[in-house]
Amino acid sequence: MKVNFFKTDLMNGINMVIKAVSSKTTMPILECILLDASADTVRLTGNDMELAIETSVPAVITESGKTAIDAKLFSEIVRKLPDEEVYISSGDGDTVNIKSGKASFTVPSRDGEDFLAMPVMEKKDYICLSEFTLKEMIRQTIFSAAANENNKLMTGELFEVKDGMLRIAALDGHRIAVRKEVLRDNYSDKKVVVPGKTLNEIQRIIPGDREKDVYVFFAKNHILFEFGDTMVLSRLIEGEYFNIERMISGDYETKVTLNKKDFTDIIDRSILLIRESDKKPLVMDVREKEMKLSLTSMMGSMKDEIEIDKKGNDLMIAFNPRFLLDCMRVIDDEEIKLFMTDHRSPCFIRDEEQRYIYLILPVNLNV
Amino acid sequence: MKVNFFKTDLMNGINMVIKAVSSKTTMPILECILLDASADTVRLTGNDMELAIETSVPAVITESGKTAIDAKLFSEIVRKLPDEEVYISSGDGDTVNIKSGKASFTVPSRDGEDFLAMPVMEKKDYICLSEFTLKEMIRQTIFSAAANENNKLMTGELFEVKDGMLRIAALDGHRIAVRKEVLRDNYSDKKVVVPGKTLNEIQRIIPGDREKDVYVFFAKNHILFEFGDTMVLSRLIEGEYFNIERMISGDYETKVTLNKKDFTDIIDRSILLIRESDKKPLVMDVREKEMKLSLTSMMGSMKDEIEIDKKGNDLMIAFNPRFLLDCMRVIDDEEIKLFMTDHRSPCFIRDEEQRYIYLILPVNLNV
Repeated sequence: MKVNFFKTDLMNGINMVIKAVSSKTTMPILECILLDASADTVRLTGNDMELAIETSVPAVITESGKTAIDAKLFSEIVRKLPDEEVYISSGDGDTVNIKSGKASFTVPSRDGEDFLAMPVMEKKDYICLSEFTLKEMIRQTIFSAAANENNKLMTGELFEVKDGMLRIAALDGHRIAVRKEVLRDNYSDKKVVVPGKTLNEIQRIIPGDREKDVYVFFAKNHILFEFGDTMVLSRLIEGEYFNIERMISGDYETKVTLNKKDFTDIIDRSILLIRESDKKPLVMDVREKEMKLSLTSMMGSMKDEIEIDKKGNDLMIAFNPRFLLDCMRVIDDEEIKLFMTDHRSPCFIRDEEQRYIYLILPVNLNV
Repeated sequence: MKVNFFKTDLMNGINMVIKAVSSKTTMPILECILLDASADTVRLTGNDMELAIETSVPAVITESGKTAIDAKLFSEIVRKLPDEEVYISSGDGDTVNIKSGKASFTVPSRDGEDFLAMPVMEKKDYICLSEFTLKEMIRQTIFSAAANENNKLMTGELFEVKDGMLRIAALDGHRIAVRKEVLRDNYSDKKVVVPGKTLNEIQRIIPGDREKDVYVFFAKNHILFEFGDTMVLSRLIEGEYFNIERMISGDYETKVTLNKKDFTDIIDRSILLIRESDKKPLVMDVREKEMKLSLTSMMGSMKDEIEIDKKGNDLMIAFNPRFLLDCMRVIDDEEIKLFMTDHRSPCFIRDEEQRYIYLILPVNLNV
């Protein structure tokens, strides 16, 4: 293989696919990036068996071929090369040479044929939406997925296509996050659970352009995201997801409207008194025109208050402040609305059109 | 104690003194910042027994007093307070109240009388130089002090005043860094060893103004740096420092002049092939007009070259690239000069006036 790149093109490609490279594995080939110069551009691939990312990089190919290079080392070397032009050649098989200006690196390589190819997927069943919309929908829900693996389904997100809408939802047993968007076309119904890790990586690498589209292809065991020259393929999580619909339907008795920034600042300050092990609730005392907030922990106590617009009953209710903060950080509205019933019933945070719905369970007031 | 601050003033003060607060200690009082409102400003103090920092913060004192608050919590709370005005009051002794806007925090406090006062030092023997000069002299030498405590003296820096000059030097057994500056006045001779930790903190908190002076006071066991409203007092390291003079005098046979940035970039790239445990040298092959550089490790190999101006013999010599890089990062000159003799003798990097001298021992070429 003999190939010439522009350094920035190559670096952009590496930065994309390295997200799917294992950092800890017993199979060294999984720590590599595949360079495939068999066609007219060079395809880079990272694949950790759960998630595979492939992108194409413009290049001048003078001798075709395939080679796999340790991802971390390759990325570090390319980033620091002195010249805009990069020349990569692999000869006898177990080393590859990377040249730029007067700098020349020779590093171990692996046979490209040993690299696990991206599974081929039938591109039949799909939806299409803007990069921006997908990126936002993931960002605004993914934090509610469970971090630990006790319940595998909870570590993923529901992708549901129904009645011309895409609904993405995540839950962890204490809270639910749901985002809904109308799709531009009509598609057949779909319902899959995508691993949280996949979505975290997609959210990072997808440019988020409002004018550019992502195609999302659905298959029995896989989902494929295609945008620009990049393909992200992920396994799905098997199993029947929770009945979100039933959980998020419900009436309310108290509706509170307040300024998001002021509320966020208060929650943010209350968390200063909480250490990991010490789960103290933020108590909200909802009255006419104002809400008093307080928190007491081993480290001290805090009190604060905020102007509100209230409809319905006065109410005393308590929450894990981190759950409130997670929601506040992803909502873009300046003003938010809390819908509550009593101190034991879930609180809903949602906009008029219910494009987002966050549900948070309250904690016992007598902790 | 009842005191009003402006938040920014208080935050600046906390940021200064917190550098001298222990984070891990069995004496909780050492994790505190002392607020002393006995005079007309509030004095904040941090003291970890080796190093004490005291600064004064403008305040309106309505009731004098002294109290000590956990430094980390105090700093976090003040940083996030909503309003520019901060009101601190301590009443019955074991709590203190911090108010700003509608936010109110009550946190544990300790009796200010239990706080270890800063030792009183006789301010007789001193030197004076600009904040800028002191900050630079420390920055340009401190990296050569030893990180481990095998030899206590090596963890500190020599401060030597002689013939109207201040000389600061650090060494760790493999390299030496020396900086010299002419002082504006004549002072009596002094020679002390200041702990590296103290100097790292001073370098961080000293503003580095060219127009403002630092007074450095010397006593038997302590050194005191006074700048603006801040005092930094540190213990000295006991013992006779190494004979720097003898080590840095010596002739040379090869003088190489080269561009610092290009050289730095090459060293920086060569380090990509080195992992912690694997100490491979960067080999420099000094020829007429160019120097070839190469490094081979378990991870691969690299070659590079750089244009040079050479006087004297050709030479093959090898160094730990990290030691070279540390020097390059603190030298401000665009062009640097290496003075060498043979592959076993130290290399000197110094400017014409010898305001800086860096000595690096070569490593065995046959590693």
